[in-house]
Amino acid sequence: MKIIVIGGTGTIGQAVVANLRQRHEVIVCGQQSGDIHVDIAQPDSIESLFQTVGAFDALISAAGKVHFAPLTQMNQDHYFIGLKNKLMGQVNLFLTGLKYIRDHGSFTLTSGILSVEPIRTGSSAAMVNGAIDSFVHAAAIEAPRGIRINAVSPTILTESMSIYADYFPGFEPVPATRVAEAYRKSVEGAQTGRIYKVGY
Amino acid sequence: MKIIVIGGTGTIGQAVVANLRQRHEVIVCGQQSGDIHVDIAQPDSIESLFQTVGAFDALISAAGKVHFAPLTQMNQDHYFIGLKNKLMGQVNLFLTGLKYIRDHGSFTLTSGILSVEPIRTGSSAAMVNGAIDSFVHAAAIEAPRGIRINAVSPTILTESMSIYADYFPGFEPVPATRVAEAYRKSVEGAQTGRIYKVGY
Repeated sequence: MKIIVIGGTGTIGQAVVANLRQRHEVIVCGQQSGDIHVDIAQPDSIESLFQTVGAFDALISAAGKVHFAPLTQMNQDHYFIGLKNKLMGQVNLFLTGLKYIRDHGSFTLTSGILSVEPIRTGSSAAMVNGAIDSFVHAAAIEAPRGIRINAVSPTILTESMSIYADYFPGFEPVPATRVAEAYRKSVEGAQTGRIYKVGY
Repeated sequence: MKIIVIGGTGTIGQAVVANLRQRHEVIVCGQQSGDIHVDIAQPDSIESLFQTVGAFDALISAAGKVHFAPLTQMNQDHYFIGLKNKLMGQVNLFLTGLKYIRDHGSFTLTSGILSVEPIRTGSSAAMVNGAIDSFVHAAAIEAPRGIRINAVSPTILTESMSIYADYFPGFEPVPATRVAEAYRKSVEGAQTGRIYKVGY
């Protein structure tokens, strides 16, 4: 398969690329690194990516920014960072990618545990992750040409604990290699409309 | 209690107002009707509402627009209608209302069944409802001064079946009076961070 990995140079993305490259042609995309540069918050940048790549079989997105801050310090603009980037960035990868993906291809987005297990400063992450999961449920039943869409919703990564452990008290971390298997299940399997929770 | 009902002239809102008015002072708000007019998509309009009302004990929002269309006809702008109106409109009622609400007051937002039971044309509604539910989970753990936040997530209303029945095959409708009891539970009870599913 020809597989596009957005955020392919990040912590999750690197593990996904290492996993899939053993069996597939993988195109690594990042905002400022990788084979092709793409800013998912810019629809023109997404269109340009697909015009460069052409037809493909699967797209994995492990990218997206949200703003973390205490609830009482959050305003509308802070929430729109996540809505425009992690949410609509990934949704636009799907909507635009529909024009280029082959029949029976798959999209795999990334949400995360914080919609189910909220933490302090995480109200925007919760909002965005919940939106992604519900969008995936709904988009799966309307996707044309046998195209599939799933999401991977990981808990905190082992590799991220040195920076973020204090925000996730009692959360059991998982290594990125384990999270990568969920993306493999989505791409190489046949399921659609699924949210693959990893580590919770 | 002094209770603000946004969308208080709509199908759900009228039932909520009729229920709560038996025991409380209720201020009915609508975009173009009710005691006070408010457009929840406009932050200035929300601020003006609270300046007019002053201190209050509970706010119920049964308002919010989303765009319904087949998935392959949806673009980014269509999704942003719901993100700006039903999602961030209700979130802004909460964020701004925090400055005016009394200690131990409550906010009750409205999401809906489509994030859990998707229908054709409902991908934006699913996205927005999922975002609201997850935001409520997260905001509840950070809300100051004993302030509570819940959401009511109803299925299709009996009163709406004459218009929308074809979009909801096999969905069992519930009367607005039954949905209104969930708002009462949120306002008069002591729970927080809850999603009250009604009819499913």
